[in-house]
Amino acid sequence: MSGLSKKISGLSGNLERSDMTAFRKLHGSEMNRLCIGQHETNRKHPVFLMLHNIRSMWNVGSMFRTADAAGIEKIIISGYTATPPRKEIDKTALGAQNSVQWEHHPDPIPLLEAMKKQGVAVFGLEITEGSRHYTEVGSGDFPLCLIVGNEVDGIEYEVLSRCDGILEIPQYGTKHSLNVAVAAGIALFELVRIVRCGT
Amino acid sequence: MSGLSKKISGLSGNLERSDMTAFRKLHGSEMNRLCIGQHETNRKHPVFLMLHNIRSMWNVGSMFRTADAAGIEKIIISGYTATPPRKEIDKTALGAQNSVQWEHHPDPIPLLEAMKKQGVAVFGLEITEGSRHYTEVGSGDFPLCLIVGNEVDGIEYEVLSRCDGILEIPQYGTKHSLNVAVAAGIALFELVRIVRCGT
Repeated sequence: MSGLSKKISGLSGNLERSDMTAFRKLHGSEMNRLCIGQHETNRKHPVFLMLHNIRSMWNVGSMFRTADAAGIEKIIISGYTATPPRKEIDKTALGAQNSVQWEHHPDPIPLLEAMKKQGVAVFGLEITEGSRHYTEVGSGDFPLCLIVGNEVDGIEYEVLSRCDGILEIPQYGTKHSLNVAVAAGIALFELVRIVRCGT
Repeated sequence: MSGLSKKISGLSGNLERSDMTAFRKLHGSEMNRLCIGQHETNRKHPVFLMLHNIRSMWNVGSMFRTADAAGIEKIIISGYTATPPRKEIDKTALGAQNSVQWEHHPDPIPLLEAMKKQGVAVFGLEITEGSRHYTEVGSGDFPLCLIVGNEVDGIEYEVLSRCDGILEIPQYGTKHSLNVAVAAGIALFELVRIVRCGT
């Protein structure tokens, strides 16, 4: 029976035959996820994500959801990026707007300067002269602040000029860029992998 | 000057001072991206992406864009997932619906059985009993078909039962899942990293 006809015949969802596979899907309650109170006090990966001049609130919400899953320290909202609560953000954050710590800094420069003085390495996610492969981060680069910029224009030069380095996701096709929320997900989970595995 | 007031005063875009940073952004023409004709004949990473019962056409388009960037062989559209051309797909694919090869198989089972006979390893992206960390793939697992499933229900058991293994992206927060297009991006770029680096 095809997937389509199976759906139509009403055999989807809980009526599916889980005994057909060794790969039984886990219920939410079996995943041992944290409640919001536990998440607040739980030790995070030493990564901050700055959303600078992000136009789409759906992208903002999606990055909140990813930041929750990646277990990072905090989101920093800067420039004209919208802040929660907004229904468009909430729609894609699916609750992560309440679990992920965030701060709003309309002007990111003083915060970046302060973070650098405190030993945080600041990296932009961009394609520039001198950018490095996004996997080329070492344990000495943490704590780390990853900056993502506008969907069309990328990170503005005033912010790029404060970066200690630029991480680039290599692209092998015809397009010039990835969706910003997808790119942030790829980079954040690679950073988490490096934090946990050391290489 | 804050990012916001800078934007308002009209100093954004091409008028930004690129001499403020060593990290000059590359123009599209400097990125040496492939044209569609070159992309068609270019050697791809030995990865197929199956989109099974994906509800959102925006997610479908976003995964086309990611598949172009990751340089994978082909997208397989199955179940009730919509196929291009649709304006919602085109809006997020941004042209990748024309550069990425794709096939439509309403019933994915015969295709999966045929691929397995030809030596393709079939992996679902899911959280199940017996799932393995998404980075635990070896060079012997390629060519590889990665399956992503419905945004709410995940991959149906009829398809899961055909998988050689399940890849799981670990999650450290309060939510039970990532957005499917973000998850596909994280997994695809990890597979590409393994193909190119061997570990």
